[in-house]
Parts: sequence; C-alpha cells; structure tokens
Amino acid sequence: MKITEVNITPIAISDPPLLNASGLHAPYALRTIVELITDSKVSGISEIPGGEKITIALGACRDFIIGKDPFNTTIILNGIKDHFGPENAFERGEQSWDQRCLGHILSAVEVACFDIIGKETNRPIASLLGGIVRQRVPFAAYLFFKHKGAGGELGFDITDNETGWPAVRQKQCIEVKDVLEQAVAMCQEFGFKSIKLKGGVFPPEMEVQALIELKSLFGDSVPLRFDPNGVWSVETAMKWSRQLEEVLEYLEDPVRGQESMAKLKSEISIPLATNMCTTSFEDIPSSIKFDSEDIILCDHHFWGGLRASMEISRICKTFGRRLSMHSNSHLGISLLAMTHLGAALPELPYALDTHYPWQSEEVIVGGRIAFEDGHVVVPREPGLGAELDRVALNKLHLNYKLCGLTCRDDEIEMQRVEPDWKFEAVRW
Amino acid sequence: MKITEVNITPIAISDPPLLNASGLHAPYALRTIVELITDSKVSGISEIPGGEKITIALGACRDFIIGKDPFNTTIILNGIKDHFGPENAFERGEQSWDQRCLGHILSAVEVACFDIIGKETNRPIASLLGGIVRQRVPFAAYLFFKHKGAGGELGFDITDNETGWPAVRQKQCIEVKDVLEQAVAMCQEFGFKSIKLKGGVFPPEMEVQALIELKSLFGDSVPLRFDPNGVWSVETAMKWSRQLEEVLEYLEDPVRGQESMAKLKSEISIPLATNMCTTSFEDIPSSIKFDSEDIILCDHHFWGGLRASMEISRICKTFGRRLSMHSNSHLGISLLAMTHLGAALPELPYALDTHYPWQSEEVIVGGRIAFEDGHVVVPREPGLGAELDRVALNKLHLNYKLCGLTCRDDEIEMQRVEPDWKFEAVRW
Repeated sequence: MKITEVNITPIAISDPPLLNASGLHAPYALRTIVELITDSKVSGISEIPGGEKITIALGACRDFIIGKDPFNTTIILNGIKDHFGPENAFERGEQSWDQRCLGHILSAVEVACFDIIGKETNRPIASLLGGIVRQRVPFAAYLFFKHKGAGGELGFDITDNETGWPAVRQKQCIEVKDVLEQAVAMCQEFGFKSIKLKGGVFPPEMEVQALIELKSLFGDSVPLRFDPNGVWSVETAMKWSRQLEEVLEYLEDPVRGQESMAKLKSEISIPLATNMCTTSFEDIPSSIKFDSEDIILCDHHFWGGLRASMEISRICKTFGRRLSMHSNSHLGISLLAMTHLGAALPELPYALDTHYPWQSEEVIVGGRIAFEDGHVVVPREPGLGAELDRVALNKLHLNYKLCGLTCRDDEIEMQRVEPDWKFEAVRW
Repeated sequence: MKITEVNITPIAISDPPLLNASGLHAPYALRTIVELITDSKVSGISEIPGGEKITIALGACRDFIIGKDPFNTTIILNGIKDHFGPENAFERGEQSWDQRCLGHILSAVEVACFDIIGKETNRPIASLLGGIVRQRVPFAAYLFFKHKGAGGELGFDITDNETGWPAVRQKQCIEVKDVLEQAVAMCQEFGFKSIKLKGGVFPPEMEVQALIELKSLFGDSVPLRFDPNGVWSVETAMKWSRQLEEVLEYLEDPVRGQESMAKLKSEISIPLATNMCTTSFEDIPSSIKFDSEDIILCDHHFWGGLRASMEISRICKTFGRRLSMHSNSHLGISLLAMTHLGAALPELPYALDTHYPWQSEEVIVGGRIAFEDGHVVVPREPGLGAELDRVALNKLHLNYKLCGLTCRDDEIEMQRVEPDWKFEAVRW
C-alpha cells in the first residue's frame, strides 16, 4: 500500500471573541485539514492549527509522503524531520499557542497515517496505541472572558428565544458573575465535571475572585484549573497562589519560563502545569534539571503525533510528572484524535482541555460530536471513526480564502477594539 | 476477540560452557515459552528467560490475561503491574543478567499479544511499532572465553571432519589466540561486521591484549566492544581504558553502579554502555543526574516489552544517549522479537547483541534462523513470523524436567570445575 495523494486544505472556522493574555481571538480560527489517499483508495484525515506558513510547509513535505507505505510512519516522519532540520523549525514564540511548524506537520501526517492503518486493520486508532483503557474520555469546561458575539458568520446578537448555552456562549463575559453564568451553562449543556478558566486578561484579584466563587458554587467535586498564560510575575504568582491553595486542582503557566516556574514551584503547594515552558522533547532535560512543573499539558499537534504523546506520557511517569492535555480552537477531527489518545494513555488523571464547545461548525459527516456526561465516547469504527464532509470542507476553505486571515494574531484583533493595547510577556 | 488460553512451557536448551564474570554457563540455559490462544484460535508466542520463579510468577498472572482482548495490551499489562506491585518485583541482582520478574512477564505477555495482533491485522510486528525502518537488522559476533564443549546433549568432542564454526564453537577458548580463532570462525560463518568480547574472566591485561589483537586483525571496519560485567574497580578501568581509546566502539559496564560509571565517564573518552547500572525506567532519573553512561543496552525481555523499548529509545534520544541491545542465551522467538524491534527503532547506531550462534536448537517451525551477511532479514509474515514446533517444544520441555536446573547459577557451575571459585562483585 502506498500513499498517492496528499490533500492540504486550509480552513477558517467561526471563533468567538475570546480574551486571553495574547489579546483577542479573531472571528475565525485557522485550521488545516490533511487528507492522505492510498493507491487502494483508503483516505486518512487529520486536523492541525492552520495558516499560510503551515500550509506552505506541509506542501513542501509531499515528496516525503507520496509513494510511502502509511504503516512505515517512522520513515515518513524521519524524512520530514531531516528535511526541516532544527534550523527550519519556527520558534515557539511567547504566545499561549505553539508556533513551531515541525510538530504540527509530524502530527498531521502521523494521525492521517493512523487513520489509514485503522481502516486497513479494521481497528480504532486507540487499539493501535496499546488499546482502549477507557471507553469514554473526560473533557473539561473551558471558560473564557470574552466580548459579545460568537465569531465569524455566527457573530449575531442573541435572539429572544435562545436560552442556556446557545445564548450564554454569545454573551459578553467580563465580570465574575458572567464567569459563573458561563460555567453553569457550559457544564449543564455538556456535563463537564472539571473546569478551567483562561486568565491573564484582568488584574489577578478579579480572576482569583472568580475562581474562589466558582469553587464556592461547584464545591469539591468539580476540580478547577486556572491558566494566566505566563503573564504574572513570580511575585504576583507567589502572592495570589496562597489564596488559591485550597481552590485549584492545578495552576497552569502562572509565570514564564522553566526557571521562574521552578522558583514558584519550590514555594507553593498547588501543582504547576505547563504548555508554555516545557513544550517539546528538547525541553525535557532542562525541565528535569530545574524541576519546573508537576504536570505537562501534552498536545499531539505540537509534540509530533500520537506515538510521541504516548512517549511523553512514559517520560512523565519516569520523572514523577503527570500528563494532561492542551487544546486550541478545533473541530471534530482533532477532538477524535485527542479522544483516541486519551483512551489509550495508561494513566489519565485529568479531564482533557478542549475549545470544542466554542466552535459551531464541522467538517465531518454527521456534524458536531456530542459529549456524554462531559465525556467523548471512544469511536468503535476503524481509524479515527470519521469521514470528511466534503461540502462542509469546501465551504470552510472558501471561508479561509475570503476571511483575509493568514495567521493567528490576537494582538491585532485586540487593537481593533482597544487601539493602544499591547501584548506584554509579563503584564501583572 | 478474547484470550482463552495461556500456555507456559519452561524449556532447557543446550548452552556451551561460556565463561563470564559470574562464573560458567550451565550445560543448559533455561527459557520459558509463552503461548496465548484466542477464542478465534489465533496463537501468539513469546520467549523469555526461564526457571522456576518465572514459571510460577507467570502462572499467577493468568487471571489478568484470560478473557482480555489482546489489542488491549495496556489493560493487561496494567493489571499485571498492579498485581505485582513494586514490593513483589525481584531484585535485579549483581549478575550480568536481570533477575527481576515483572519486566520478563510484561515482555512475555506483550510480545505474544503483538504476535496475535500481527496475525489479526496481517502485518509483521515491526509494522505495528511505527513501521519497518530497515529491512535487515545487524547483529554482532559475541565472543566468549569458554571451556571445551558445546553444552548439554551437544557437549561431545570435536570430530575430525568438522571445520570452521561448528568445530571452533566446541573448542576451549582461554588464550588470546583462541579469541582470534573464535572471532574469525564466527564472523566467517555468520557475516557479522561488529564484534563484542565478554570479559571480566581473566586479568585485564590479557583481555585488553585480546582486544588489541582483534583490532589489529579486523581493522577499523569492524567495531569492537568489550564487557567485563562490572567486575573492574574504577582505578583498574581508568588504567586499562587508556589503552583501549583507539580500540573500542564502546566499553560496556566496566565498573559497577551509576556513580562509578559516571566517575569513569568523566575521565575517559570511550563511550560507556550499560545493561547493569541503568536497567529500568526507575533507574533513568538517577542515570540523568549522575550522567552514568552514553549508551543504554535495552532488552525488551527486561524493560517490559517492545513498546517500552520504543519508549526507552525516545528517552535515550531526549537525553543524548544512544540505544543498543543486550542479549542472553536464547532461541529464535526472542531473536525475531529483537529483529522486529531493531527494524522499527527510529535510529539504530549499533549492531545488536545476540547469543544465538552459541545455541543449536529451535522451537519454531523451519528450525534455526539464518543470518544473511551478519543480519537477520525482517520477516514479512504476519506477527513475529514464526510458528511453534510443538515436537521440538515438548522435547525441550522434557530437557527442562530432566536437567535438574531450576534457575541460572553460574557460580555453582564454575565451582564444579574450580571448587574454590567465588563470585566477586569487583574482582580486578
């Protein structure tokens, strides 16, 4: 079996005006859908963060994919790694999302290969990663401060006859009471049993107050996490962490860099998590040296795929760290890949992050994936368990071409609302 | 698909009187053959080090295997790990071979599951580990000082009409000239392009002399390794290493323990390898802390299987170590598992160790596996690519029952020849 076609389709999906330390989400989030087709006409698909750079970089990898057996994933990935070399990998950058290219591309190719392998062997992907350890994978409610609107074509006003989550997801959320309303609506709609609040937007006292009130409202049975995306100083983090010791399950990237994280970790008792300071295998040795975090938020899109994620899970276990999972705005193909990985991980102490409730479109046949009591049920179909909806894909690709966005830039989006706003690596 | 049968068959295979730091190989090496059979009558096989303890421990794991889907390997292995717990794992011990039980059992179960999965999906095991990166896997000549004879039933004298390897393998090897003769005969017979000498038997000056003469005879194109199994003191290793700097590809376990290895490593330029001081995931943090070796000799029998071996390969890459492979006396099932692993490893800088040329029997249909130019060709058949020869298995099981051995003890064997001989953890 050989791969004969590589289809790379950049898309733009509606994304609400979510606030974060980097600024504001644009009306569209950019994703890239990859489809590999074999000479036997088996199609394998994957989804990764999108934009112009990634589309060009992926296109340059065609020669390392075409003609290869998708079972020989290591050969394909080694070819791509050699082609890129460390000097051509983009910098991760200071934002909450990873701007490196290589991990994305490896992930796109590997997941699509796994989808083909699953179809060829008549097995769900989780079965090929060591097996289905859990039948349903827990996800967490992901709360955001936000402006009014639901992004892109859906950015209309709330109509009178909408209630619950469909209404709340379009509302402004800039006060503590809004956060509580959002949490209740999201948990009621999807059944989530863990909550994460994205912070780094407002002064610490307000965000900490929101967490304390969430804790008071939901009680001990709903673990809470908080992520200011590294824009707190060590002193600020030290001060406010003390108030959060009985409140948080874990504190994600309160400060920037492994050394600052390590300094904080040695002073406070809340477990520290990261998807910003330890974000690749290359970062692991210094993470061990500094002891910079308790929990690594893996993301198969950034770490180079599902097998690499199983390997980081082993590294976490070996060095006394725990694994959780990071997300960006995404559709169902990414959600399913995360679900297969979550199903196969030997240990899964935390509900996984997902932005999925904030999105409204889909590119897979059957449309939006349902949450069952806060969980996604692991598909029993071969591969990922999804097929491309080509009409939807074309529509979202047209969106990409029309929306005028070529890369994510939350600072520029924020400046459309607040012209003097500037990204600050450490703000509070 | 469910596993319905677990067949555990201890066997004894002829083993020549090989000398090593622990003493002398007994006339029989003990192995255990495991067969898992599914309700669909698919059989998966594996081979691990044997003896009474391992047979009993494996038998106690039946409940965690029977009724399980072999694709859900992680669940089966987690069940066995939980059952054993750290307190029931045997100690590794001071000998060159690993006496812990858990790794062996995990390996036995996982490889047999992989054999079933391969047959079910019609793919060789290497394909299920990320794919076949190389079509042939290189192995190394493994030279031993030895007494006369070929072990067990084959321990007869050399007949006049035998030449080459069949003659040499039965000869005594206790002088430098014997080592050279053995090396030439083994390399001619099997085509090996790398050589390892097992040392720690004679005083360092004699073993170092053998290495220098091997180097002189074979030249730079045949890399040399040497393994005194930790019985040199740091001072001895420091002294003799200086003479080996231009001679060795790597030096394996010259001294005992991570701290001694680290001390030596900081003083000499020959890469240091180990299968004695860093032998499990639990040993990795202190290995990193001390910087105890350059190369980890993985062994899927000890590290808990093939996926675990792929994971240790990633850990090596992450921490700037390289991976090579360890062996004990074994038959073809182990050789094939090593070959699939060797085929799938993203990087394979060294030819793998194998005792296989020292063995003479087989338990698989078709008999002994051939080396092609020092390599084993990766099987293209589903799974391991081998079926049990049940007549041979029964014969070797009878050998086990008759031979009177229940565990490996090279010291007792040595004392049959030299009554006053005692194992010494550090001898020279």
